[in-house]
Amino acid sequence: MKARILITIGDINGIGPEIVIKTLKNERFVKKYDLTVISPLNVLEHYAKALKIRLWADDFNIIPIAAKNVKIKTGYVTAESGFVSGVAIAEAINYCMNDDYDAIVTAPISKEALNLGGFRFDGHTEMLTALSGAKDTCMVMLGKDINMGFASTHPPLKKAAGLITDKLLQSKISICYNSLKLDIGVKKPRMGVLALNPHAGDGGLIGDEEIKIINPALKKLRSKYKDLFLSDAYPADGYFASKTYGKFDMTFAMYHDQGFIPFKMIAGLSGVNFTAGLKFVRTSPDHGTAFDIAGKGIANPASLVEAIKAADRIYKNRIRK
Amino acid sequence: MKARILITIGDINGIGPEIVIKTLKNERFVKKYDLTVISPLNVLEHYAKALKIRLWADDFNIIPIAAKNVKIKTGYVTAESGFVSGVAIAEAINYCMNDDYDAIVTAPISKEALNLGGFRFDGHTEMLTALSGAKDTCMVMLGKDINMGFASTHPPLKKAAGLITDKLLQSKISICYNSLKLDIGVKKPRMGVLALNPHAGDGGLIGDEEIKIINPALKKLRSKYKDLFLSDAYPADGYFASKTYGKFDMTFAMYHDQGFIPFKMIAGLSGVNFTAGLKFVRTSPDHGTAFDIAGKGIANPASLVEAIKAADRIYKNRIRK
Repeated sequence: MKARILITIGDINGIGPEIVIKTLKNERFVKKYDLTVISPLNVLEHYAKALKIRLWADDFNIIPIAAKNVKIKTGYVTAESGFVSGVAIAEAINYCMNDDYDAIVTAPISKEALNLGGFRFDGHTEMLTALSGAKDTCMVMLGKDINMGFASTHPPLKKAAGLITDKLLQSKISICYNSLKLDIGVKKPRMGVLALNPHAGDGGLIGDEEIKIINPALKKLRSKYKDLFLSDAYPADGYFASKTYGKFDMTFAMYHDQGFIPFKMIAGLSGVNFTAGLKFVRTSPDHGTAFDIAGKGIANPASLVEAIKAADRIYKNRIRK
Repeated sequence: MKARILITIGDINGIGPEIVIKTLKNERFVKKYDLTVISPLNVLEHYAKALKIRLWADDFNIIPIAAKNVKIKTGYVTAESGFVSGVAIAEAINYCMNDDYDAIVTAPISKEALNLGGFRFDGHTEMLTALSGAKDTCMVMLGKDINMGFASTHPPLKKAAGLITDKLLQSKISICYNSLKLDIGVKKPRMGVLALNPHAGDGGLIGDEEIKIINPALKKLRSKYKDLFLSDAYPADGYFASKTYGKFDMTFAMYHDQGFIPFKMIAGLSGVNFTAGLKFVRTSPDHGTAFDIAGKGIANPASLVEAIKAADRIYKNRIRK
């Protein structure tokens, strides 16, 4: 059974509408999935016209939002675009919580615009977690040759270290463990964990979180999940240089850039962002709004295509159980 | 004219002695350079015997340190190994400050052992800076396809963000600029700078150091050095995924793992650590003591070989001026 997938349009001034339209014009691809786009109608019309693409709405569905024509200012952060971004996500969550749909694939939004538009969330993951009433979720990146879970989404760097607590690691790594089994279909998951500090703290000389928090937390998790292979904290630079990630079903990163820098280098355009721990499936491309190239017709829909494939695949893994 | 190069033996319980001996046994390579090893004699004898390598001391020189036979405990952190590590470095600095030698190539040490051995330094770079009386230095990694300067060496992650100030950036980036001209031989240097925060702070929503400190500092530096092309702060993940570093003579990273993860992935075994801003030249391999494989005879001397080549090349660039 296909997943009933909702696609949110993303920031209407970024590349979201363009990559959605480019994806929808691929008839053969679209027919394989059950796709519904949530978007103001005039946004789809505007960008389809600009791209000289004619869409055949027989192959997919549209749920229109925002009755009046919304104002498009391609390349700019506006309150209106943020408002539309947020409404599309909120509506999609409602539909999924009501079991009308199984999965949400979100086109990229601007966090700045989202806040200007009246939504007080740091991003998609936080909004999905709060509005779906999930206890906790974990940002996971899925890619060719590497999957990665994250201890946090994208806090300022000065806050990243302070977020690492036993409680947080228990919750996030448990979500990743369950997701590997339920969503990815791995029977005996193997996870490689990155250290927070350079050289994994070098015996406590340059940071003691590995000794005081991380390695003890990993020990607790190992005794909790008998079929989980969980490493101790690896120095992150050597872990990637030696391709140690290849031995694991998932790598767990302690903060955004530590994980995203190597993930994007390894996964290339295959990367998909997945929110583990939600009742429904949620994926998104691994790139941002790219305001600098918005409206130029050169945006690549490859990551959105991968996100749709992943959403359908994860849903099928879930119902197989 | 060849650089007169001192090689410090590094931690005598790590892979330092092994990679030094493997390098010295390559007669053709050694004859091209002017090499002198600083080491306790019994350490060289012990490891040469274990590796079944006979060295021909006609091709290089030895400065013996530590009169008595030092105790070797391969694979272990000991106070004695830390003491020997530190003495070798201190002696090498003295020789270079006295103009007896032009360059130091340091085999890897354990910071933990160094401290146990009585030296209160965080590592090579800090020790070289303090004992040579340099105003400031900058850790630079040189590699095939990428060079990288660092705002700091390897502080605990929780301290990394707080170190970023206008004063620090003025000093470190100036050192990198001068080094690109003097040491690397680039006439009009181009530098790409990484943001501290994920998404470069996303307009200030997730960290404001880019807006308040980094980009203003870069503006000042641009007006100071007219022949320097200096970027604004790039989101680090996209910078590497899109290979933007290929457009620059040097990338400037805000903290250890942000730079070292991609550097090691890109440079592979070609990576060399270089301390810019010293009176003499100092390079080292880009790996650690590797206690886990010490004494097994499987350590690869490739990065030490690159470090020797780089030291000689940098010296020649300097005297050409």
